[in-house]
Amino acid sequence: MITPLASFDDLSVGQKFEFGSIRMELDEIVDFARRWDPQPFHIDPDAAAAGPFRGIIASGLHTQAACFSHIIRSGWVAQVSMGGAEQLVRWPAPVRPGDEIAVSARIEALNPSRSKPDRGVVKVLYTGRRLTDGVVVLEILGTHILRR
Amino acid sequence: MITPLASFDDLSVGQKFEFGSIRMELDEIVDFARRWDPQPFHIDPDAAAAGPFRGIIASGLHTQAACFSHIIRSGWVAQVSMGGAEQLVRWPAPVRPGDEIAVSARIEALNPSRSKPDRGVVKVLYTGRRLTDGVVVLEILGTHILRR
Repeated sequence: MITPLASFDDLSVGQKFEFGSIRMELDEIVDFARRWDPQPFHIDPDAAAAGPFRGIIASGLHTQAACFSHIIRSGWVAQVSMGGAEQLVRWPAPVRPGDEIAVSARIEALNPSRSKPDRGVVKVLYTGRRLTDGVVVLEILGTHILRR
Repeated sequence: MITPLASFDDLSVGQKFEFGSIRMELDEIVDFARRWDPQPFHIDPDAAAAGPFRGIIASGLHTQAACFSHIIRSGWVAQVSMGGAEQLVRWPAPVRPGDEIAVSARIEALNPSRSKPDRGVVKVLYTGRRLTDGVVVLEILGTHILRR
């Protein structure tokens, strides 16, 4: 699947990566939200049915964490990651129980550090698309600090 | 502590709210990261000691989720929340085991919906500061859709 990056210098702007897909299950949606985002439309089927989304939807934090952990577990940045400083996260459409989300990435910008020659900052646009119809349900414009 | 909001119209730009503080414990930092962000500097004390942060630090996703859930649990938006569409999240400084983080909010912008008279969009800047020295460890510029 994904070849682990060996260096910041292996990347180029515009490069694309595919990470396969994840499935958002009802019990995980409810479990996550009970701990981190206990709002009725994430945890209570009856209240959710009468609420603004007409049924349970995943917490945006859950979709973000599920897609991000999927990328981390792929090993893509395991050899080079030195953390990150910022994420712009968008949830353009709700995620419902059973939705499968395809995760991809595109390299947006590469900035070698001026003060620290052993590293660089990469901006990556991660996109989560619902498999059935291609609708974008998550965008993360994130930064990683990567070893060179 | 926090008085639950009764309507979008109760807010004004510049208004500030204090949510008390949370404490980031080592076992919770490791547990969260094992599931959602399994990088050595979040889950492995030995590797972390030799790594870029010279010790375990919390996953940024964890700090974000911990502060956000603290706000949700305060009940502040419980009567009016209709979800959110975007968060810009910054982690200006690492969070270490035992750190206590004071959580506050400032209303940045208020936009009544033009098409749906029952709701409005509020932009809120959430800030997490380390209690011991006031250093900002988290900023979230988030949106909420709130009932009027």
